[in-house]
Amino acid sequence: MFYIIGLGLSDEKDITLRGLEAIKSSSRVYLEAYTSILMIDKDRLEAFYEKPVILADRDMVETQSDEILHRADVEDVSLLVVGDPFGATTHTDIILRARALRIPTRVIHNASIMNAMGACGLQLYNFGQTVSLVFFTDTWKPDSFYDRVKENASLGMHTLLLLDIKVKEQSEENLARGRKIYEPPRYMSIPTAISQLIDTESTRNEGILTPSTTLAIALSRVGGGPEHERIVAGTLEELLAQPEERFGEPLHSLVIVGKRLHHLEVEYAGEYAVDRENWRRVAREVYGCALE
Amino acid sequence: MFYIIGLGLSDEKDITLRGLEAIKSSSRVYLEAYTSILMIDKDRLEAFYEKPVILADRDMVETQSDEILHRADVEDVSLLVVGDPFGATTHTDIILRARALRIPTRVIHNASIMNAMGACGLQLYNFGQTVSLVFFTDTWKPDSFYDRVKENASLGMHTLLLLDIKVKEQSEENLARGRKIYEPPRYMSIPTAISQLIDTESTRNEGILTPSTTLAIALSRVGGGPEHERIVAGTLEELLAQPEERFGEPLHSLVIVGKRLHHLEVEYAGEYAVDRENWRRVAREVYGCALE
Repeated sequence: MFYIIGLGLSDEKDITLRGLEAIKSSSRVYLEAYTSILMIDKDRLEAFYEKPVILADRDMVETQSDEILHRADVEDVSLLVVGDPFGATTHTDIILRARALRIPTRVIHNASIMNAMGACGLQLYNFGQTVSLVFFTDTWKPDSFYDRVKENASLGMHTLLLLDIKVKEQSEENLARGRKIYEPPRYMSIPTAISQLIDTESTRNEGILTPSTTLAIALSRVGGGPEHERIVAGTLEELLAQPEERFGEPLHSLVIVGKRLHHLEVEYAGEYAVDRENWRRVAREVYGCALE
Repeated sequence: MFYIIGLGLSDEKDITLRGLEAIKSSSRVYLEAYTSILMIDKDRLEAFYEKPVILADRDMVETQSDEILHRADVEDVSLLVVGDPFGATTHTDIILRARALRIPTRVIHNASIMNAMGACGLQLYNFGQTVSLVFFTDTWKPDSFYDRVKENASLGMHTLLLLDIKVKEQSEENLARGRKIYEPPRYMSIPTAISQLIDTESTRNEGILTPSTTLAIALSRVGGGPEHERIVAGTLEELLAQPEERFGEPLHSLVIVGKRLHHLEVEYAGEYAVDRENWRRVAREVYGCALE
């Protein structure tokens, strides 16, 4: 059996009992290590599972998946994925490949940011499509995310923005010279994300993201408990003014609040507001929310 | 500490290790038993946890939450919820109440249908807002769901429809007479859901849901493994023609496929199609999907 197992969002204890059983029965255990990160490292997982864990980079999962699937028709093999296995396209690829090889497959689900974002107090029902925000460079500032946020905003929906992560990237020079030397991992911070949003708004100028009156909620390490989880709510400019440490450790996500905002959502998320009075004022005056 | 713990989607083994630890440390354990169901009953949970589990109905969670929260400031109390704690509004209510009472709270996340729906092969990124579909009666056929599906469809997004569940409902007569006698639980089936969709389309007539060319995917007991999980894909009329047993046991959900359909989504979900050739034909000819 080929298992793809969601690890959930923070550490080794977020796995399900079913997932742990599958790992225990597996002769090889791979950890997908490029679309997301756990709060802990491989050594701690190995100690916890009492068996070695093989890091699987993008190359291995996308183009050398037969190595992972080797003998999975006669023994158990597990691929561990942070969050839920269906967060990223690449896992449907490997399942299609397993099917083609007639290897039985089982997916073991877990929480991912796509549902755990409910922790900020906004209703999951009121979210539109999820959008990725990639690092801008001097020469490449892709703004298609803006169209997606605009589509959601036009319906009053909230938008979850997943902030970019760069793992195992090569510098242009190393790439050109074919040297497999990798840059340190980079995770987009909340201030960087908001700067990019405001930058794009100033170019596009369609009034979708207004620094002083667009409400947003920054999320970090959701489910990680009081020591790790950070949820910070405010207008874009309020969030931009916060020191980076306020937003905790990566990975970060940012929710852009839609106009179909319910007073209970305002109340719940108000707990996380930089300035609770201003949060409520904007919700009332700009979002038209009926608050007491 | 007051814990709200997601149980995941199918049975006692879908809980996380962190969730199980919290239950073990709790002096009282409640199970929320009205917005969703597990595939197993309370007795099995009690045997597994080695402690009693108190069923909490809507009244208890919504209006008598102080009973649940009693002494949670000095001992551990757990409220178990099928799926993830932030699937339903009522759990934000009880957390707000806990905050007001200055009771420390921790949410332990898990998979819910809101992310596990990725199992059908459609990308989570391409889903718009989630919509509930309630049972029609002779005199009440609320069609606001149609507007929501239309909004998503206008952007090419997929829609997850959560099908109604009636638990602890009273008949009109028993309600009128104040008799606390409850009807057996009812779960909306896929054929009933599709009949309601077609019924509404014939009234609204805006061409959002066309029986022969709107693609949909029925989901049941996602994550429940080969014995329990059912995923069935087809046009609305193909699904309507299937015997009810084909769709497995409740709870059921139905995904309406949006036009922003990727060929990899078609390929993956094609595995579940009632008629794979027709599935691909409609994807190509009606959805404009570039298939080989």
